[in-house]
Amino acid sequence: MRLSRETGVPMFQQLYEFLKAEIVSGHISSNERLPSKRKLAAHLGCSRNTVEAAYNQLVDEGYLIAKPKSGYYAAELDGVFSIGRAHQAERWDIEAEPAYAIDFSYQGVDLDHFPFSTWRKLTKEVIDENDEDLLRTGNPQGYPKLRASIARYLHRSRGVNCLPEQIVISSGTEFLLQLLIQLLDSETVYAIENPGYERLPAIFRSNRVECRPVSLDEDGVRLDELKRSMANVLCITPSHQFPTGIIMPVSRRLQLLSWAGEGPGRYIIEDDYDSEFRYSGKPIPSLQGLDRNGRVIYVGAFSKSLSPALRVSYMVLPTELLEGYKEKLGFCICPVPTIQQKALQRFMDEGHFERHLNRMRIIYRQKREAIVTAIRELLPGAKIDGTDAGLHLVMRVGNGMSETELLQRAKAHGVKVYGMSHYCSGPVAEESEAALILGFATLRIDEIHDAVRLLKTAWAS
Amino acid sequence: MRLSRETGVPMFQQLYEFLKAEIVSGHISSNERLPSKRKLAAHLGCSRNTVEAAYNQLVDEGYLIAKPKSGYYAAELDGVFSIGRAHQAERWDIEAEPAYAIDFSYQGVDLDHFPFSTWRKLTKEVIDENDEDLLRTGNPQGYPKLRASIARYLHRSRGVNCLPEQIVISSGTEFLLQLLIQLLDSETVYAIENPGYERLPAIFRSNRVECRPVSLDEDGVRLDELKRSMANVLCITPSHQFPTGIIMPVSRRLQLLSWAGEGPGRYIIEDDYDSEFRYSGKPIPSLQGLDRNGRVIYVGAFSKSLSPALRVSYMVLPTELLEGYKEKLGFCICPVPTIQQKALQRFMDEGHFERHLNRMRIIYRQKREAIVTAIRELLPGAKIDGTDAGLHLVMRVGNGMSETELLQRAKAHGVKVYGMSHYCSGPVAEESEAALILGFATLRIDEIHDAVRLLKTAWAS
Repeated sequence: MRLSRETGVPMFQQLYEFLKAEIVSGHISSNERLPSKRKLAAHLGCSRNTVEAAYNQLVDEGYLIAKPKSGYYAAELDGVFSIGRAHQAERWDIEAEPAYAIDFSYQGVDLDHFPFSTWRKLTKEVIDENDEDLLRTGNPQGYPKLRASIARYLHRSRGVNCLPEQIVISSGTEFLLQLLIQLLDSETVYAIENPGYERLPAIFRSNRVECRPVSLDEDGVRLDELKRSMANVLCITPSHQFPTGIIMPVSRRLQLLSWAGEGPGRYIIEDDYDSEFRYSGKPIPSLQGLDRNGRVIYVGAFSKSLSPALRVSYMVLPTELLEGYKEKLGFCICPVPTIQQKALQRFMDEGHFERHLNRMRIIYRQKREAIVTAIRELLPGAKIDGTDAGLHLVMRVGNGMSETELLQRAKAHGVKVYGMSHYCSGPVAEESEAALILGFATLRIDEIHDAVRLLKTAWAS
Repeated sequence: MRLSRETGVPMFQQLYEFLKAEIVSGHISSNERLPSKRKLAAHLGCSRNTVEAAYNQLVDEGYLIAKPKSGYYAAELDGVFSIGRAHQAERWDIEAEPAYAIDFSYQGVDLDHFPFSTWRKLTKEVIDENDEDLLRTGNPQGYPKLRASIARYLHRSRGVNCLPEQIVISSGTEFLLQLLIQLLDSETVYAIENPGYERLPAIFRSNRVECRPVSLDEDGVRLDELKRSMANVLCITPSHQFPTGIIMPVSRRLQLLSWAGEGPGRYIIEDDYDSEFRYSGKPIPSLQGLDRNGRVIYVGAFSKSLSPALRVSYMVLPTELLEGYKEKLGFCICPVPTIQQKALQRFMDEGHFERHLNRMRIIYRQKREAIVTAIRELLPGAKIDGTDAGLHLVMRVGNGMSETELLQRAKAHGVKVYGMSHYCSGPVAEESEAALILGFATLRIDEIHDAVRLLKTAWAS
């Protein structure tokens, strides 16, 4: 064994690694006495402190036993962990790269304007300031101060009336829905929008509760059909219906609220998934803000307003449901790490969130204008809907091609667009015009025009 | 308006804040033209760059509109977010401080030996290196490299045989169980250990599936009772039964595996919740490692080995269940932020996890010895069980007091201990001797003796 001053690895570390390997391999056998610190230091030509540091680390980790006035002995290795390091060659599944040059994804956010440096700074501050948050599970409903910040934000920007106590923070809308399914009566029948968020039927199915699709008219979910469905809980996206982009007018909102008030156990789950970005028309308060009977469960997330990778969503429970939640589901620990909840709370409380939203509003508005302008110019026969809010629009190309053909031709030109039929429950009427969903959040402004031109080329017959 | 060089706030920031307030308050009305940069700079005695920086930020956030060759105009504020900052006075619920001076909690970990600086360093590295992970949702089953690291760790330390593809990373054992309940047949009847983890009945109940308690003998869950229960999925903690601390011998493990092989749809959910710390006796491989028929679903977590606040748990699905998982539950996005998964993967791959486990093994062994020694000395009539592994033990005080009395007297002396009856399903036999669960992970070594002395005082009749 030789210690080297030139490797960049501290000498005690070299000695530690060497002795550990000797003990693990059995070259130093268990219960064998090691040389004294003085002798080994003399032999290696290093200081006694170096040997002492290496011996101490080996004692700490269970490879050596220090016997007072006698010396250091190699330990029995029974139970010592030896995991080894990763080998490059080890196998893991690699995510398939998308085969598309352009993706009009309606998920995801703008990749160029996230306030990385602020977020990093806040995360580091939180980690540096409070060690113990790395070790304790926090409040099961989520960090109380973050809940207060969310309550304030929802009140100011969405007209939501709630106390922080009513908020439950979780990870993803799926998880919140699963909690709600467990909280509400097992006989509950859920109504969902048709077309609608494609994961909802899967969530209800895998949770083994009944869900019934209700179709839409130009104001959103149809009241007559809702009543006929005999559902008692309605899931809707009134601010910007997914995927049609319909903004539900106040009249329909009031009708739905009065439907909810008519029977016991009736609730409306209001998914306000991309309410942050509204470009024209009067602001309409959330259903929750209009509700006087505690019948609305408001669900939101930071997926559009910040990033889907944060995995932070929340719901506002009516006070009537709060006690039951604590009793039945109090065992569910908030899945968002406290460190991240604290960073987010500071991000909100120090005004960064407000600034970020205002900046993104401008950017997304420009992207929306770029895509609308490009479509009007390059695909003059197309009809566009749902552009008053949110991060996607609906386009009816109107060139007589079927949805399948539109998608396939776009794919052949390296462009991914999304067909409306994927979001429909039940058969889609043959004669209905093909409709596509085009998201614009992840595209750069300067590539939007060319992306639409690619579609024009793809669809030229 | 005066700009000050002495406040520490950059001048452009002062100007930005001032103009924003003027616009929001209406003192500068919408569509009003602002002074040119040159004029305002001259008026304020600052550079044009200062004014330009403030104007640009206001344009970015939508308070001003820049019209080419014309100047800057206050914008219509319709839609601009104004959330404001937190007020100290705002209300949030404060977690009640525990009224106990000493808590023999069986949850939580040692608070003094977490490798904070390493964890912090790795987190910062990951955040600094790869911005995009803050913006994209990762693999729905969890970061592939972390799954590879977990597979390697489980193989080396627990004899678990699996490929990274079989691993699903989630947040907390509750979430994993909920996924499994959705994955397995809805008619599945679950058997749980009695006594056992107290949240299990609540989880099964709120997910509306049947669960039946099965009592234990000295080797763990009773086979005859399991068979009579007609359950087809068994949840057990064979490495260190919670709460009794029984380490299930190989013979019983093999009996259970052959039970699982006897019927279709039979599975064993092996919760290896605190397998990391074993102090004596031969290591027994996990049930999963003994299984030849793909009947074991292995569940683990970093809650004991690192920290419960990380909220990282995982399960290993038999390959037979993997396809069904992807099909039915592929929509469930891994709730652990990618940043944190990457930090954990590095922590494991760079050898820090191995070192941490070896260090903690020594420390927990010392704590275990301290508590056993103190009990033998101060409560000589007490019987102790379950000390061969894990972070808690079971104590039968044997002084004739009921569990309720033991708990109340301890509480009156500021000490929290846990009564076995809380973990039992169904009535506890009157004549059974009161048993308590004492965790020792969160106590400091030097306070353990005094803590046990407090119990002696509390229980002195």
